[in-house]
Amino acid sequence: MSRGSECLGLSEDEHYRERAQRKKELVDRRIARATIDRGVVVVNTGNGKGKSSSGFGMLARSLGHGFRCGVVQFIKGSFSTGEEAFFRRFEDELDYHVMGEGFTWETQDRARDIAAAQAAWDVAARMLADPGYDFVLLDELNIALTKEYVVLDQVLVALAARPERQHVVITGRGAPDTLIEAADTVTDMRVVKHAFKAGIKAQNGIEL
Amino acid sequence: MSRGSECLGLSEDEHYRERAQRKKELVDRRIARATIDRGVVVVNTGNGKGKSSSGFGMLARSLGHGFRCGVVQFIKGSFSTGEEAFFRRFEDELDYHVMGEGFTWETQDRARDIAAAQAAWDVAARMLADPGYDFVLLDELNIALTKEYVVLDQVLVALAARPERQHVVITGRGAPDTLIEAADTVTDMRVVKHAFKAGIKAQNGIEL
Repeated sequence: MSRGSECLGLSEDEHYRERAQRKKELVDRRIARATIDRGVVVVNTGNGKGKSSSGFGMLARSLGHGFRCGVVQFIKGSFSTGEEAFFRRFEDELDYHVMGEGFTWETQDRARDIAAAQAAWDVAARMLADPGYDFVLLDELNIALTKEYVVLDQVLVALAARPERQHVVITGRGAPDTLIEAADTVTDMRVVKHAFKAGIKAQNGIEL
Repeated sequence: MSRGSECLGLSEDEHYRERAQRKKELVDRRIARATIDRGVVVVNTGNGKGKSSSGFGMLARSLGHGFRCGVVQFIKGSFSTGEEAFFRRFEDELDYHVMGEGFTWETQDRARDIAAAQAAWDVAARMLADPGYDFVLLDELNIALTKEYVVLDQVLVALAARPERQHVVITGRGAPDTLIEAADTVTDMRVVKHAFKAGIKAQNGIEL
């Protein structure tokens, strides 16, 4: 029994209940204050793992809620075959586009990289203008923005003009500052340690 | 044309190709050095969004690779209904357990919280001992560890003794230091900004 419990003559269980009750009231008050009901822009950035996988997790959640979803992958990495194989199963609920042709250091052709990114952006812009999409995932768009393959101002304008209840998730390291300003929820995913750097082979199911 | 290009008499495209080639060689060398082929332990921690959704994204990817998967949700939050509804579709490939009965400030009953966490850990321990599982997601286990509802040493022993090629993903804020030491890949997900705090209602498809 803690000191506080002794003073008040409360048992540990009663204290637990009291603390839990206070916490619940705090959370309830916060929920009551959150009254703006609209779609949000989520940005996952940073050098750590989890940016894309979190976006695909939110996609799964959105499909679970019966949302109509769209995905544009701006860069098709060698590890993205797993999610593509999986999410291709849901053609009725999900519009899935893989536009990039691999990382630029694999294609080594700048003109082709730019053309692929532009084509990807055209598809994305169409989704952002269409109220038929409840959820849009723009995977690795930040990379295309950093390399200036896609024009940042066009993205900001399209986000601002999108249907009010549409959610958008944008992933990739190096999110531009103005995109972070425009977003509602931003997470910086930082590496604490990474298996690959410790000499462990990239694993199909896990990596990137 | 950049200064360097002029000096060497290379066009911008040739320079691009040269830089891309060097980058590719670097990546290829890193891949060649990563020769240890075994399952990894991934920990997603921190106060930001994306810890659980990243775990569920890795689950989707793993299912895409034909892995046999297991999930134990240690805390069933009000927003986790989406992923449950979605992943329940895959009963043949996926063993999905939701063991918690809500956040503790909702149940306000310590004995029930501990019993639920223990029951969840029993299921998790069985998965970690079974080479039939290629991928195991222990969602919000860190919360149960922080509250000491599950014994950390038991978790460390089970992780160390698990089948060699089994991947494990553990999520939740406040990952214990010894778990971080034992893990292969750890990401600290930090809040940059959060829609909820700005008064925007929690959204089914997006919010934790």
